Amino acid sequence: VVVLAGGFGTRFWPASRARRPKQLLPLTGGAPMIVETVSRVLPLLRGWSDVLVAGGRLVESETRRALPHLPAANLLVEPCPRNTAPCIAWATSVVARQSDDDIVIVLPSDHHVADPDTFRRCLGLAVESARAGVITTIGIRPTRPETGFGYLEVAGDGAGEGARPVQRFVEKPDAVTAERFVASGRFLWNAGMFVYRARDMLRALDAHLPAVAAGVRALDAAAARGRESEALDATFAAMPSVSIDVGVMEKLAEIAVVRGDFGWSDIGSWQAAWELADKDARGNASPPRGVFVDAAGNMVVDARTAAGASKKVVALIGVEDLVVIDTDDALLVVPRARAQDVRLAVERLRESDPDVL
Amino acid sequence: VVVLAGGFGTRFWPASRARRPKQLLPLTGGAPMIVETVSRVLPLLRGWSDVLVAGGRLVESETRRALPHLPAANLLVEPCPRNTAPCIAWATSVVARQSDDDIVIVLPSDHHVADPDTFRRCLGLAVESARAGVITTIGIRPTRPETGFGYLEVAGDGAGEGARPVQRFVEKPDAVTAERFVASGRFLWNAGMFVYRARDMLRALDAHLPAVAAGVRALDAAAARGRESEALDATFAAMPSVSIDVGVMEKLAEIAVVRGDFGWSDIGSWQAAWELADKDARGNASPPRGVFVDAAGNMVVDARTAAGASKKVVALIGVEDLVVIDTDDALLVVPRARAQDVRLAVERLRESDPDVL
Repeated sequence: VVVLAGGFGTRFWPASRARRPKQLLPLTGGAPMIVETVSRVLPLLRGWSDVLVAGGRLVESETRRALPHLPAANLLVEPCPRNTAPCIAWATSVVARQSDDDIVIVLPSDHHVADPDTFRRCLGLAVESARAGVITTIGIRPTRPETGFGYLEVAGDGAGEGARPVQRFVEKPDAVTAERFVASGRFLWNAGMFVYRARDMLRALDAHLPAVAAGVRALDAAAARGRESEALDATFAAMPSVSIDVGVMEKLAEIAVVRGDFGWSDIGSWQAAWELADKDARGNASPPRGVFVDAAGNMVVDARTAAGASKKVVALIGVEDLVVIDTDDALLVVPRARAQDVRLAVERLRESDPDVL
Repeated sequence: VVVLAGGFGTRFWPASRARRPKQLLPLTGGAPMIVETVSRVLPLLRGWSDVLVAGGRLVESETRRALPHLPAANLLVEPCPRNTAPCIAWATSVVARQSDDDIVIVLPSDHHVADPDTFRRCLGLAVESARAGVITTIGIRPTRPETGFGYLEVAGDGAGEGARPVQRFVEKPDAVTAERFVASGRFLWNAGMFVYRARDMLRALDAHLPAVAAGVRALDAAAARGRESEALDATFAAMPSVSIDVGVMEKLAEIAVVRGDFGWSDIGSWQAAWELADKDARGNASPPRGVFVDAAGNMVVDARTAAGASKKVVALIGVEDLVVIDTDDALLVVPRARAQDVRLAVERLRESDPDVL
C-alpha cells in the first residue's frame, strides 16, 4: 500500500499547517486521518513493512511521529513537490525492485471511510482486477456536481460486484459538464485510489510520461549502487509536475473501476468536517469545554497543541453556522458556508504572517 | 480622591475576571482604565498620597500591580462586598481622621473621559460648591433612555458654568420614566462622581445610614488604637449592603450638580468599547495581527496574558458585527448587538467552569 501524504495545509488552516496538513489532523475521530487510513488497510497486509508513505520534507517529522511503527525506509520523502505522478512512479518502482508482479494499492492519506469492511472488500475486488493486468480505480457514486474531482464513465451505473471497464476518464470537468455527468447516472467520482500490478503502471508511465519513467529508472540505477538519496534531489527536480490522473489515467485505453459504497468523503473543508462531526441537539460540534447560549450549527475546534495547554472554555452566544478554530498562534472565525474561503486568508497571510502557515 | 475599584468582571468576560475586573483592562488605550482614571486627576493633587483606592480582596494584588506608586496604606481593601455606601463612608472617615474639612472627590475607576482638561475644570467647580458645604455631583447630558443610571433633575438644562441645585435625584428609573426624563431636557445622568467636604458626608451618613455611620465610627476607634485591620472583617460584614445613591443621595434635601461635557462613557459593554475603539475603514477594531477578509464592524481583542504569548493571528472571514475575545483559557464569540448577554455565559460557567471566571 502506498499512502500519499502530501498537501499544503491550507483548507483546514489554522488547524492545518505546511508542516501538519490535513492528514495529520484528527478530523473525524481520535486519531490523525493518516493513522486511520493505514489502520483501515493493515488487515489486508502482512504488516507495516508492506506500507509505503510518500510525502514532502515539511511533513516528514510529523508523519514519522504519527506512524511510529512505519519502518524508517518506508517513508519516501519527496525533495520537492511534483504532484502525484512522479511520487506514485517512484513508490511503484520501489515495490518493483523486489517484484514487479506485486500489487500496489495507492491511497490518499486524508479521506474518510465510514464502513471499513466494505472498503476492504472493494479493494479486494480491485486487486483481483489488477492481477488480471488492468489498472483499476475505486469509483464513488456522485452526490453533487463537484468540479474538483475526476469522473469515470461506466456502462450502467457501475453497481454490482467486481470491476467494470471504464469507458472514459474525465479529470475535473466544468460545472455544466459535471451537472450532465451526475444527471446521466453513468459516472462515478474517481476517489484517487489506484490498484495495479507494479509493472503495468511502469509500462503506462513509459508510454505516457516518459520523462517520469526515465527519472524513476535513474533512481533505480542509483539505488542499485546504494546512492538513491544522493540522486534524489536532482532527479526529482528534473521531473515534470503532473498528476497521475492527467498524466496517465486519462490516456489509458483500458482501465477498470470497482464501485465503492462505503461512506466515502474526502472532507474538503470545515463544512464537510462539521457534517461528519458529533453534534449536540442544536447542531453544535463542540470541544470538551464548549459553552453555547442560543447558538446553533456551529463547529468549534480547540486545536491548541502547546505543551501544558489545558482545554479552553469556548463560549458562543447568539451565533449560527460559524466555524471557530483556535490554535496556539492563530484563530479563525468564518461562516460554515464560506469555509472554502479560508484559502483567501491563507493567501493574505503568505505576505503578512508566513510564520503561521 | 477616592477611586472606587470594585466590580465582578462579568460584562467584559473573558477579558475581565473576578480578579481582573473592567478597571484593570486597557479598554480605551494603552493603560488599564484605573491608571487612566488616576492619571487624569493627579494634576489636581499634591501627589499619590492624596489618592485612596477602595476595592475587594480579589482585586487587591492586580490593583497594586497596576498602581505601583500608590502608597500601600492608600489601598482600602474591603473584606466583603457591601456596595458603595460602606466603602465611601470608610474612605471618607479615613480622610476625616486627618482633617474633616478636606474635600473628597469620589470617582469610579472604570469610566472613559475624552477631554481630561474639561473634566478637571468641572471637578474644580464641584470642589468650589463642596467647599460651600453642598454635596455635589457631576451630571452628564443623557443621550438615550438608559435605565441603569441615576437621573438628576435640574432647573433649565444644567448648562453653564458652576454648580446648580438638584431638584430631584431618581436612581435607576423604569424605561417609561427614563424616556420622559430624557425628553424633558431637565435631567442629567448621575455619573457616580461625588465631591464633598468630609464632614458633610459623615453628617449625611449619620442622618440616613446610621448603621453605616456607626460602622465607620467603630473603625475610627479601632484605628486610633492601631487595630483597624483586626476590626475590619466583623465591622464590614455587619454593615448593610447599600449604594450611596439609594442610601444617601436620593434622600438629601440639598445637592448640587456640575454639568460635565467632557465626552463621558461608562463603557458598559463590548458594544461601547467598540464604539470608542480605533477602527479600520470597514469598522473592524483589530489586534496587532488581525486579518479581515470581507468582514466589517467586528471587535477583536487578543487579551492573552500568559508569559511569552506572542500576538496571535486572528482571521475573520465573511462575518459582520461580531465581538471575538481571546484569552489564555477562554474564548468568546458574540454579536456586538448581544454584548449584554455575555452575563448569560458567565452564569452558565458559574456552574460548569468557575475557574475561568
